[in-house]
Amino acid sequence: MNFMNRSNPIGFFDSGIGGLTVVKEAMRLLPNENIVYFGDTARVPYGSKSNSTVIEYTMQAARFLMKKNIKMLVVACNTASSVALDELRKEINVPVIGVIEPGAKMALDETKNGRIGVIGTYATINNKAYSSQLKKLNGKIKVFEKACPLFVPLAEEGWLDHKATHLIAREYLEEFKEHEIDTLILGCTHYPILTETISKVVGKKVKLINSGLPASYILKNYLEGRGIRSQSVQIGYHEFYVSDVPAKFKNIAERFLGRKIDNLNKIDLEDLIK
Amino acid sequence: MNFMNRSNPIGFFDSGIGGLTVVKEAMRLLPNENIVYFGDTARVPYGSKSNSTVIEYTMQAARFLMKKNIKMLVVACNTASSVALDELRKEINVPVIGVIEPGAKMALDETKNGRIGVIGTYATINNKAYSSQLKKLNGKIKVFEKACPLFVPLAEEGWLDHKATHLIAREYLEEFKEHEIDTLILGCTHYPILTETISKVVGKKVKLINSGLPASYILKNYLEGRGIRSQSVQIGYHEFYVSDVPAKFKNIAERFLGRKIDNLNKIDLEDLIK
Repeated sequence: MNFMNRSNPIGFFDSGIGGLTVVKEAMRLLPNENIVYFGDTARVPYGSKSNSTVIEYTMQAARFLMKKNIKMLVVACNTASSVALDELRKEINVPVIGVIEPGAKMALDETKNGRIGVIGTYATINNKAYSSQLKKLNGKIKVFEKACPLFVPLAEEGWLDHKATHLIAREYLEEFKEHEIDTLILGCTHYPILTETISKVVGKKVKLINSGLPASYILKNYLEGRGIRSQSVQIGYHEFYVSDVPAKFKNIAERFLGRKIDNLNKIDLEDLIK
Repeated sequence: MNFMNRSNPIGFFDSGIGGLTVVKEAMRLLPNENIVYFGDTARVPYGSKSNSTVIEYTMQAARFLMKKNIKMLVVACNTASSVALDELRKEINVPVIGVIEPGAKMALDETKNGRIGVIGTYATINNKAYSSQLKKLNGKIKVFEKACPLFVPLAEEGWLDHKATHLIAREYLEEFKEHEIDTLILGCTHYPILTETISKVVGKKVKLINSGLPASYILKNYLEGRGIRSQSVQIGYHEFYVSDVPAKFKNIAERFLGRKIDNLNKIDLEDLIK
C-alpha cells in the first residue's frame, strides 16, 4: 500500500443504523480520517435472518464500499461480523476488522471474576460468535449468552426508558444475576442506546462493553501499524449511503452521532446486487 | 380467461409470515383451490420501509408469482396493499385484490356508532390507507388511527400473552377508549395473532376486524363472478416460497396455519430481482 492510500476513506458497514455507534467512537478517535458508511436499511434487520442470507448481503455491501476506494473495512455489525468475516477476507483485498474480537478482548481485560455475559441477536448468539472467541483467548473463562431480539425494535422505536423496555430487559437479563457476571458484552450495535436500562437491570457493578470503543482503538492501531493513517490536519469528510430512502435514517442517525449529516445518499438495490 | 385457467393457482404474497393468517381463511373457505404463497422473509419487515422500496419489492414478488401461472393475486400484506395496488394493477394482467378494502368494508358493516379504530405499521398508518378507504365508502365515519410497530416483533417472538406485550398494548391502545370506538381494524396481518391481548385492552365490546376473513369472501365472490372458481373435487395443492432459508418459516408457519407444510422452497433474491 503506497503513500497515496493514506487519504483513502475507511469503509464502515452495518445492516442499518446501529453501526453508527461504532462510527461515533471512530470519529472521536480519528477525526482526520475520511469515512464512507453504508447502512442496508432496505433489508434491515439481519439478526433474525439466516447465515447464508447475511453473508450474501455483506458481500454485496463490501463490493459497493470497495468501489469507494476504501483502505480498510470495518464490519460495524455484530451479526455480519459473526458469520461473514472469513468470506470477506477471502474476497476483499483491504484489511477487514469486525466488532466481535475487539469486544471479546476488552471484556477479558475488564473481568475480574472471569464470568462474562453476552447479549445479541439470534444470529450472533446462535453462532456462538463471542463465546468461541472468548474461550479461544482464555480457556478458563465462563460465558453466559442470551439473545434479546426485542431490543433492536425497542431502540429503533426510541423507547429507551419506557416501562415496557424495563420489563422486557428484566425478562431477558434477570438470569445474569444468578450467573454472577461482572462484565456484559453488548453484542449488537443497537444496544449501547439502551445502556441505562440494561445497567439498571443487571446492576451498576456490572461493566458494560460497547464494542464500538475497542474496535476504534484496534482500527487506529491497525492504520498506524500499517503506515496508512491519514496525515491530513483537517477534519475528514464523512459520506453516508443507505439502501432505503434517507429521510428516516437522517433523523435517527443525527441523534446517534450527535452531529449533522450533510452527505447522505440512497443507492439502488439493483446496483448493490449486480 | 378460458376453462383451463380454473385450475390455475391463486397467488398470495406477504413480506413474511403474517399473510398466512389470510391464507388460513382462504384454505378454509376455498379448500379445493390451488395456492402458491410467497413470503419475502429475506427482506421482512416492510412496515418500517419507504413506499418506493415496498413498491419495488412487491412488483418483484408479483412477477415471480406470475411465472407460477396464477389466475389471481392476493396481496396478503397491509403495507404492500396500502402502497402498491395501483402499480400492480397496471403491470399484472390477472385480477389483484388487497386486504385494505375488504377490511374497511367489513368494519363499516360492523360498526354501530360510526367510530372505527385502525392499527397497523408506520407505512400503513402514514399512508392513511384505511381512513381514506373508509371515508370514501362513508363520508360520515369517524376514524382513529395508530401505528403499533412493536406488535410485529412481539408476535414473531411469540410473546402473545406476556406482561410486556400487555404493557405495550396498553400504551398503544389506551387512547381508543377515549375515542369510544366500537370497531377496531387489525391493519397488519401479524396482529390477529395478538387478538386476545388487544381485546383485553380495548374491551370485549369492541369488535376486532381481521382482514383475512373478508378478503377471503371477496376472493371467493371474485372467482365465482368471473367463472374461474376451481371445479376440482379434491383438496388443492399448496406451494410455499420464501426468500430466506425455510427452516424458521416452517415452524412458525405451521403454527399459524394449524397444518403441516410439505411443499416449501427457497428462491434466490437474484432470481427475484432480475
